[in-house]
Amino acid sequence: MKNQAGRIERSDYLDAVQDALQKYVPEEKGRMQSGLFQAMRYSLLAGGKRIRPILVLEFCGLCGGNQESALPFACAIEMIHTYSLIHDDLPCMDDDGMRRGRPSSHVVFGEAQALLAGDSLLTLAFETMLSPESVQGAGAARAARAAGVLAKAAGPYGMAGGQAIDLLCEGKPVSMETLQRMDECKTGALIRAAAQMGCILAGADDQRLSAADRYAASVGFAFQIEDDLLDVEGDSTAIGKPAGSDAENSKSTYVSILGAERAKRAVDELTKTAVQALDPFGEDADYLKDLAERLACRNR
Amino acid sequence: MKNQAGRIERSDYLDAVQDALQKYVPEEKGRMQSGLFQAMRYSLLAGGKRIRPILVLEFCGLCGGNQESALPFACAIEMIHTYSLIHDDLPCMDDDGMRRGRPSSHVVFGEAQALLAGDSLLTLAFETMLSPESVQGAGAARAARAAGVLAKAAGPYGMAGGQAIDLLCEGKPVSMETLQRMDECKTGALIRAAAQMGCILAGADDQRLSAADRYAASVGFAFQIEDDLLDVEGDSTAIGKPAGSDAENSKSTYVSILGAERAKRAVDELTKTAVQALDPFGEDADYLKDLAERLACRNR
Repeated sequence: MKNQAGRIERSDYLDAVQDALQKYVPEEKGRMQSGLFQAMRYSLLAGGKRIRPILVLEFCGLCGGNQESALPFACAIEMIHTYSLIHDDLPCMDDDGMRRGRPSSHVVFGEAQALLAGDSLLTLAFETMLSPESVQGAGAARAARAAGVLAKAAGPYGMAGGQAIDLLCEGKPVSMETLQRMDECKTGALIRAAAQMGCILAGADDQRLSAADRYAASVGFAFQIEDDLLDVEGDSTAIGKPAGSDAENSKSTYVSILGAERAKRAVDELTKTAVQALDPFGEDADYLKDLAERLACRNR
Repeated sequence: MKNQAGRIERSDYLDAVQDALQKYVPEEKGRMQSGLFQAMRYSLLAGGKRIRPILVLEFCGLCGGNQESALPFACAIEMIHTYSLIHDDLPCMDDDGMRRGRPSSHVVFGEAQALLAGDSLLTLAFETMLSPESVQGAGAARAARAAGVLAKAAGPYGMAGGQAIDLLCEGKPVSMETLQRMDECKTGALIRAAAQMGCILAGADDQRLSAADRYAASVGFAFQIEDDLLDVEGDSTAIGKPAGSDAENSKSTYVSILGAERAKRAVDELTKTAVQALDPFGEDADYLKDLAERLACRNR
């Protein structure tokens, strides 16, 4: 990644993404719909780990691509992630009043505006990737392919489909297979899309593209299991329940199905698989190895 | 439009769109999220005038483009129109229990599934336009540009922004200027996008592109005023209220602001402007002239 055109330093990833998001979703104070932009910015600029945009930028860089040209795509996937959180929190869905330590969008702006803010972020993601500037920067073929990958990952065969499976399973104990299928759609698809988009934007060959996909699939799955482990630890610490009892509802988790020990072993195995998948990228992939390991060890 | 590659006969437009929509949104009975696809199909395949897809196909044909290759784009704009109707009917928005003579999506499938069906149709629109097949058919540069135009028209600067302006004005009397601004975003933007997309997909020059845009802008505005006229006639016939009293709420309409006579004259003027805009297309444009006139005279 030396002397690469349009390079962004790893230490600048978060700032670069935040600055670009600010640019793509301005305040628009002069417009009648400025309240809509305010609602979009409230959720989008609130922080978060920005894992998806970082994967886009890092894989793009690893494959020798222009990371500046990948920024609109990195921001687009964060917009889509944020829209899903806003709609997910709505009263008709999870009815969650808090998000990232602040009141949810619909609590602050009302249900109608939150609905529109989600719709707008989803649409603006495509507007951002397909603007004349973005298309010129990335090249039309790569831009169309990357945006297409993201659309598929976010739609009824991906994230939105996972939400529908979740609705179906609500409050019912489910099998390991069902839980995995749901998470592959609900969260896995978008993380895999991020890695793929980075490679596509850099014009990477199929070998690197599928290696990146394997990495992201393993990391995404490990992340999900680790989330369940963290929930249990949180619960047992906070309320004194035995780990894994999950008494609040009968929702199945990886921990309730596998038990905490097997779940931890699964995270370790998946992380190993993720790291091995990085072989084609050589030493340059150390950053992604560290990322996989940090995501896997959040509570240990 | 003779001997043109990928030509679709005008009399086949509706069937071609319906068949393609069926293909792009299959039943997916084998998938866990088949209920989501059912909800998407319920609203999408329910009919409607299909004005937007017809504009895509007709302008594409007029400009010598391949209409078969434009079908995914024609279907995408109908998906986006349908998503907007589903979300618009939700309890937190207009809370409308009926749509096109049938119960609304959320009445049949519940609020959560209706929300997801809307989200999914919006996302699938981009998946459909940006699939490898669609991009190959249209060419990457044209596909990316057409999809970008649609994204902008549907997002916070277009349709979704218009919804936000509508929220802001709810129950308040507004000026002619505000009402027009709202409708330009809420409905005008998507109709203009349809005409532009058809031209872009055919590789039309800027003169034809801006002529198509002027036509669509005038037709869209006329359509909106005519809608208000129809509402008033409907009200006065059905409930015996004097035309224009609109006693149910204090929402401003073109009729309440202009009066019925001036509103009718505005429709006629706009239709004339629309027809004049078609000059660069010559005699081939008779179909679009008829369309403008039919849309303008729905109640006369």
